[in-house]
Amino acid sequence: MAAITLADLAIRYGCELRGDPDLEVSCVGTLDSAESGAISFLANSAYRAKLTSVKATAVILAEEDADDCPVACLVTPNPYAAYAAVATELYPARKPKPGVHPSVVCDPGTSIPASAEVGPGVVLGSKVQLGERTYIGPNTVIGDNVSVGDDGWLAANVSIASGTRIGKRCLLHSGAVVGSDGFGIAQSDSGWIKVPQVGGVAIGDDFEMGANSTIDRGAIEDTCIGDDVKLDNMVQIAHNVIIGDHTAFAALAGVGGSAKIGARCMIGGQAGVLGHLEVCDDVFIHAHSLVTKGIREPGTYSSAWGVEEASKWRRLVGHFKRLEVIAEKIKAFQKTLKDIKK
Amino acid sequence: MAAITLADLAIRYGCELRGDPDLEVSCVGTLDSAESGAISFLANSAYRAKLTSVKATAVILAEEDADDCPVACLVTPNPYAAYAAVATELYPARKPKPGVHPSVVCDPGTSIPASAEVGPGVVLGSKVQLGERTYIGPNTVIGDNVSVGDDGWLAANVSIASGTRIGKRCLLHSGAVVGSDGFGIAQSDSGWIKVPQVGGVAIGDDFEMGANSTIDRGAIEDTCIGDDVKLDNMVQIAHNVIIGDHTAFAALAGVGGSAKIGARCMIGGQAGVLGHLEVCDDVFIHAHSLVTKGIREPGTYSSAWGVEEASKWRRLVGHFKRLEVIAEKIKAFQKTLKDIKK
Amino acid sequence: MAAITLADLAIRYGCELRGDPDLEVSCVGTLDSAESGAISFLANSAYRAKLTSVKATAVILAEEDADDCPVACLVTPNPYAAYAAVATELYPARKPKPGVHPSVVCDPGTSIPASAEVGPGVVLGSKVQLGERTYIGPNTVIGDNVSVGDDGWLAANVSIASGTRIGKRCLLHSGAVVGSDGFGIAQSDSGWIKVPQVGGVAIGDDFEMGANSTIDRGAIEDTCIGDDVKLDNMVQIAHNVIIGDHTAFAALAGVGGSAKIGARCMIGGQAGVLGHLEVCDDVFIHAHSLVTKGIREPGTYSSAWGVEEASKWRRLVGHFKRLEVIAEKIKAFQKTLKDIKK
Repeated sequence: MAAITLADLAIRYGCELRGDPDLEVSCVGTLDSAESGAISFLANSAYRAKLTSVKATAVILAEEDADDCPVACLVTPNPYAAYAAVATELYPARKPKPGVHPSVVCDPGTSIPASAEVGPGVVLGSKVQLGERTYIGPNTVIGDNVSVGDDGWLAANVSIASGTRIGKRCLLHSGAVVGSDGFGIAQSDSGWIKVPQVGGVAIGDDFEMGANSTIDRGAIEDTCIGDDVKLDNMVQIAHNVIIGDHTAFAALAGVGGSAKIGARCMIGGQAGVLGHLEVCDDVFIHAHSLVTKGIREPGTYSSAWGVEEASKWRRLVGHFKRLEVIAEKIKAFQKTLKDIKK
Repeated sequence: MAAITLADLAIRYGCELRGDPDLEVSCVGTLDSAESGAISFLANSAYRAKLTSVKATAVILAEEDADDCPVACLVTPNPYAAYAAVATELYPARKPKPGVHPSVVCDPGTSIPASAEVGPGVVLGSKVQLGERTYIGPNTVIGDNVSVGDDGWLAANVSIASGTRIGKRCLLHSGAVVGSDGFGIAQSDSGWIKVPQVGGVAIGDDFEMGANSTIDRGAIEDTCIGDDVKLDNMVQIAHNVIIGDHTAFAALAGVGGSAKIGARCMIGGQAGVLGHLEVCDDVFIHAHSLVTKGIREPGTYSSAWGVEEASKWRRLVGHFKRLEVIAEKIKAFQKTLKDIKK
Repeated sequence: MAAITLADLAIRYGCELRGDPDLEVSCVGTLDSAESGAISFLANSAYRAKLTSVKATAVILAEEDADDCPVACLVTPNPYAAYAAVATELYPARKPKPGVHPSVVCDPGTSIPASAEVGPGVVLGSKVQLGERTYIGPNTVIGDNVSVGDDGWLAANVSIASGTRIGKRCLLHSGAVVGSDGFGIAQSDSGWIKVPQVGGVAIGDDFEMGANSTIDRGAIEDTCIGDDVKLDNMVQIAHNVIIGDHTAFAALAGVGGSAKIGARCMIGGQAGVLGHLEVCDDVFIHAHSLVTKGIREPGTYSSAWGVEEASKWRRLVGHFKRLEVIAEKIKAFQKTLKDIKK
């Protein structure tokens, strides 16, 4: 790791520097553990007390916390974003080492750009279009007619089915599956009849997809993912879902078929959105919540229940299940009181 | 894609044709986007208004919607099933291209039928029995003593552990895992002791398994999946679960160990069934619901909470947590009113 | 399978033997299906009635059930743990067959111990340290600087990213992913900025990880998993989570970033723990529950809702959503009653 001066960082990332501009940092660290030579950050004033004992060479933080910082600091309105940029500079993403491993199986109808790295055991179908500087990790399988934009990165053991189109700078983690059949089955007297899933998947630029997440191909038209969409691990996107730009899903969240999620939404972990619903832009859904109706107003929504000690929870649920009785009693009271007051 | 006349479709799929029998269709489309030459469908009368502007050559629909259709139509009591059949005709599933890729690693104790296609990087254990016309996708791994029936299709990167038996016409999507150890651990003073999982997995015909779904092998006896069972993506079936014919699970649903689910059930996304429970035939469980007791009556069951605006939700939860107080107050009212009425 | 006498089992596993010490067993079976020659177990007295018709040669059970057992029995305070040990003896885990398949791709900077078995299609990065007698299943991919302790077992299609350290006797099932990037993204005016995930994953001894589960690498420091931790299938462990010894997670459970879970906890299926929370030792979380605040007291916690018949559930939810009105009415009653009593 190369060292970089605080002066350089302040200039490059538009921060106000408080402290010696010639100090150098070469790594990152948490407020608790960073040593001299490291840069840390404080993104949440609730942790301001940690500044007291900080040993980092510098801290990225907001104006309001700067006075409490005993070491050099880079002041910025958005410390977490500035930290992300600085950390990216100190820990640049590994670049592809151009070349195709001899074990790669590539359909003759596909040509691999010279700047790409294609790892051992990779299987590429026909008419696959890999962008410049793409990295395809070991044992990843890409079907026919798939395109991956420039600077894409597919980790090991990823599966991309035919007809998937992914924009530039994607990052797919291990076990991700894109383009598997949507869950389209029609009931008949003799059982289920499979509905052919003939749509594809179209994904914008700057897409990140967590480990073991899944995106199904469309039934007729495509499943559509906007730009700068971020999926954590084990997120399920069903067929014909449409997701707006900059929307993020935490782990184990799921979206039902043909739902339309707006831009800049954040969907919490284990949350669900039922199929065919429309959720507008700028909606935040708490973890473990379920969207059962369309949402037309930006805002924060929840149906999450936090745990209670189990015996207390059991009593509360018991009261809940007697709510009909409670409502009856209240009606009776109203009548009785009316009678009394007469 | 070959074109087919409406007359042919009507005859083959038992629909009543309204319109010119010589019209031809060669692809499918949604009511919104289908152009001339395409066939569409209307399975839910709620979308009937979309018929007004339809440009498809023909629409598959129910009797009650036929009068509103400005183009030719195929009338049938079950439009979605008829659509599935027509779409399967227009988009026939890709057939295996018989042959074994040279990179395949196959135990000498296994013989592969000449009609099967085994893709690059596949690893087959000993005594594997592949049915006629099976397709094994790239980098899929199949353990010892596994059988896959005729016309089975395993996509890329599937993992089937030893002792799994799957019937005819299965379709397993990428990342599916069958036969991993059940979660059997016994508590002891020195920590967990693993309970050997010596059962297998037995699956019927016409099984579909979504991407990254998992089915564990049995602890002693087999985990048993009936005929025509359909799993969406990331569905978890624990050890010794028994699932009846025609039952379907939406994404991220999970069933605990030794639970028994009846035939023709539908389990919603992110729903759970606790272990050792019995759920009878024809039960529908809403998304995000939890089955905590056996179910003996067919019907629809729910414990799903739909989201509210978060501050309202917080207030409601607050009231819920005061339900004990409310119950107390109601008791007190009853007493007071009794006293007053004396 | 070799047969073993009841006398031997009683001595080795510290059970009291009731019955003929020379009887031999060679396999396990359930109380319902075990035949002569098999050993069964009764770990839950609720199933005691099954003893009546048992055909097993012997049953492992607790003192309180022994008198009802018509066949030989091994009496022990913890029948399930004793069964686990006996079953492990009767069904010893398959041992690695030392050797490296010719298709393995191994960086020259990695040396594989002679006692290890490395299967077809495996890809090993540089400076990987494999312990003695490790088994690496087909098509598994291991990144740079990964260490796996002695007697580790990685099934097929596992993905381990660089910088992961796993202790002795681990067992990872197919599709497991360790060391994928944590979900670290910073909001900025131009969209998300990726926060480099430069920590690793450190896992203790005796770790089991279910199929398709995921553990993310740390953002700065490591994600840390203690000894004897057990994950079922599709469990999500986010970046910088810390998990204490002997803690177990059922399927589809998830833990948010930087949460700290104590020792000997049990987290139910589909349960969630929000990020940054601390859960103390010896906490049990019911299935489908959500931990939204830190837990400081050992005990059992729940926020699980069991299903009701759907129309009843809808009515109950309706009453719940009128709780504000109910609370208002109760206030009004109080006032009215006060007025009346004056």
